[in-house]
Amino acid sequence: MTTKTPENTRLPLAISAEDITAARERLRGVAHQTPVMHSSTADRITGGQLFFKCENFQRMGAFKFRGAYNALARFSPEQARCGVIAFSSGNHAQAIALSARLLGMPSVLVMPQDSPAAKLAATREYQQGQPRSEVVLYDRYTEDREALGRRLAQERGMTLIPPYDHVDVMAGQGTAAAELIDEVGPLDRLLVCLGGGGLLAGCAVAARAQCPEVQVVGVEPLAGNDVQQSLALGHIVHIDTPKTLADGAQTQHCGELTFPVIQRLVSEVVTVTDEQLVKAMRFFAERMKMVVEPTGCLAAAAVLEGVVPVRGERVGVIISGGNVDLQRYATLLAGT
Amino acid sequence: MTTKTPENTRLPLAISAEDITAARERLRGVAHQTPVMHSSTADRITGGQLFFKCENFQRMGAFKFRGAYNALARFSPEQARCGVIAFSSGNHAQAIALSARLLGMPSVLVMPQDSPAAKLAATREYQQGQPRSEVVLYDRYTEDREALGRRLAQERGMTLIPPYDHVDVMAGQGTAAAELIDEVGPLDRLLVCLGGGGLLAGCAVAARAQCPEVQVVGVEPLAGNDVQQSLALGHIVHIDTPKTLADGAQTQHCGELTFPVIQRLVSEVVTVTDEQLVKAMRFFAERMKMVVEPTGCLAAAAVLEGVVPVRGERVGVIISGGNVDLQRYATLLAGT
Repeated sequence: MTTKTPENTRLPLAISAEDITAARERLRGVAHQTPVMHSSTADRITGGQLFFKCENFQRMGAFKFRGAYNALARFSPEQARCGVIAFSSGNHAQAIALSARLLGMPSVLVMPQDSPAAKLAATREYQQGQPRSEVVLYDRYTEDREALGRRLAQERGMTLIPPYDHVDVMAGQGTAAAELIDEVGPLDRLLVCLGGGGLLAGCAVAARAQCPEVQVVGVEPLAGNDVQQSLALGHIVHIDTPKTLADGAQTQHCGELTFPVIQRLVSEVVTVTDEQLVKAMRFFAERMKMVVEPTGCLAAAAVLEGVVPVRGERVGVIISGGNVDLQRYATLLAGT
Repeated sequence: MTTKTPENTRLPLAISAEDITAARERLRGVAHQTPVMHSSTADRITGGQLFFKCENFQRMGAFKFRGAYNALARFSPEQARCGVIAFSSGNHAQAIALSARLLGMPSVLVMPQDSPAAKLAATREYQQGQPRSEVVLYDRYTEDREALGRRLAQERGMTLIPPYDHVDVMAGQGTAAAELIDEVGPLDRLLVCLGGGGLLAGCAVAARAQCPEVQVVGVEPLAGNDVQQSLALGHIVHIDTPKTLADGAQTQHCGELTFPVIQRLVSEVVTVTDEQLVKAMRFFAERMKMVVEPTGCLAAAAVLEGVVPVRGERVGVIISGGNVDLQRYATLLAGT
């Protein structure tokens, strides 16, 4: 199922190509310029020439570092002194914790009580040695994390950084596409995974600025196709938390800043099934020797499974991250 | 257990730095210049600065492509017309099959009847469309593969390329270390996995030519420490096929050409256990998002587990390959 997006608005978008250029300057020497990988098998399967931008090799294992660091690097001295707060059970938490340590500011991460021990440990590890930094646990069944986060932010004078609906976060994420196109040249098509839309919106702005003819495609899990629905209806649709392996795309709705960018600059949004994600995950392990988390497989699954035909095209594929619990990963690889 | 190697011979070695330079020219634009990866966690654990040369991202998934292609590229027109024969149950088979196809020559691979189906399929896939190319199966319990290989070579006029004890193979493998040092600069120490010694010997020649002070360390599985024994005794020791997860290092002895190079240029040979290999394999998956086969973990395990202390040093670590059956890999990751 695919949906064409009308270019139906001419209001200014939340971010511009200049914001992404500025973000690249802030990230220089701090974020990794991640490698671009090729696979002759993937090219043979799809008939295209595929360029995989490997954000699984980014610091803390996901593109989220780009946006988090870019946002924190723009704090005023007073903001930096008080620090940052974020609520996240995923890569955003680790991205904020690491960025805060690098910039020498306190961080408070509001995380579910029942988060995987490895994620809590990783976040605390990034906070190590950083004063006034902590993980605050909440009960996801009885407490409202947003209310808790806002209360803590107010009490402590901390700045709340949301995971996607924020201009500096969006601009930071867009640097992934900017680097890719700088390295490999113009693309016919760029595929990007899609949860809240921060990565997709940022990459769309960057890519369309560098090669205006590129078709930018967002890829959602079939079970959580809220953006596809939103584009069809012309307004942001809210859905129940989707049941999908792609835990990074279990968002209930995209953002008020990301949606207009997606409406204007993204050619279409397509969906893939969990089964297709697992096939792509195995392909990455077997043929490209890379560990990719389920969410990170969204864009690749769409091309490898033929959801988006790319014969004869030069195609960018963003691999968003590689953070997956090893036991869970082993189970998915084994198919048991 | 470690063994110091005497520099006890002054006979000319089988290969020189010039051979490696020539091999680099032959491989230019054909082999991948594989990425060098970093891990701040690995640096913190070891106290050194580690540079991982990722031959798991090499064509066909292992460094073996370098040596195979270099050897085949030196065939005379008559040799090329008749083609190449090799016996191997591992990466050497696929490396020869792919190199032969790229150079447009026939290849015959002698492989055990009970090879994993995936390996047979991969080898045949590389041979596809190549005339007079085939996989010849033998029964490893009743047939002598070397005799079979020699008979076929003679009957068909084909040139036999052994997996390690061959000057062009050794020179080709050495290009991995040459590239690494070119990219990152001089190293204090270089760790290389060790089976028959082709990779170690080639890398030792390259590394010592580029930075004469570098300490080159070979790493064997504990169960198959034939080279350690050989160095202690001053002659090549033959052992029974060792029981180890590192199937690429299940050699019974090193080569007559590789051993003198190792004696002269390698500082020491150390061993790691299978348990240490699995820990390193998990480290690569969890922290560096890479699939590394057990043999490919040998060198890394030696530093991560503190077998070779590297505090304050600049250290090269060769990751030899990433070809591991997915089910087996999943089982090892899960630890069940």
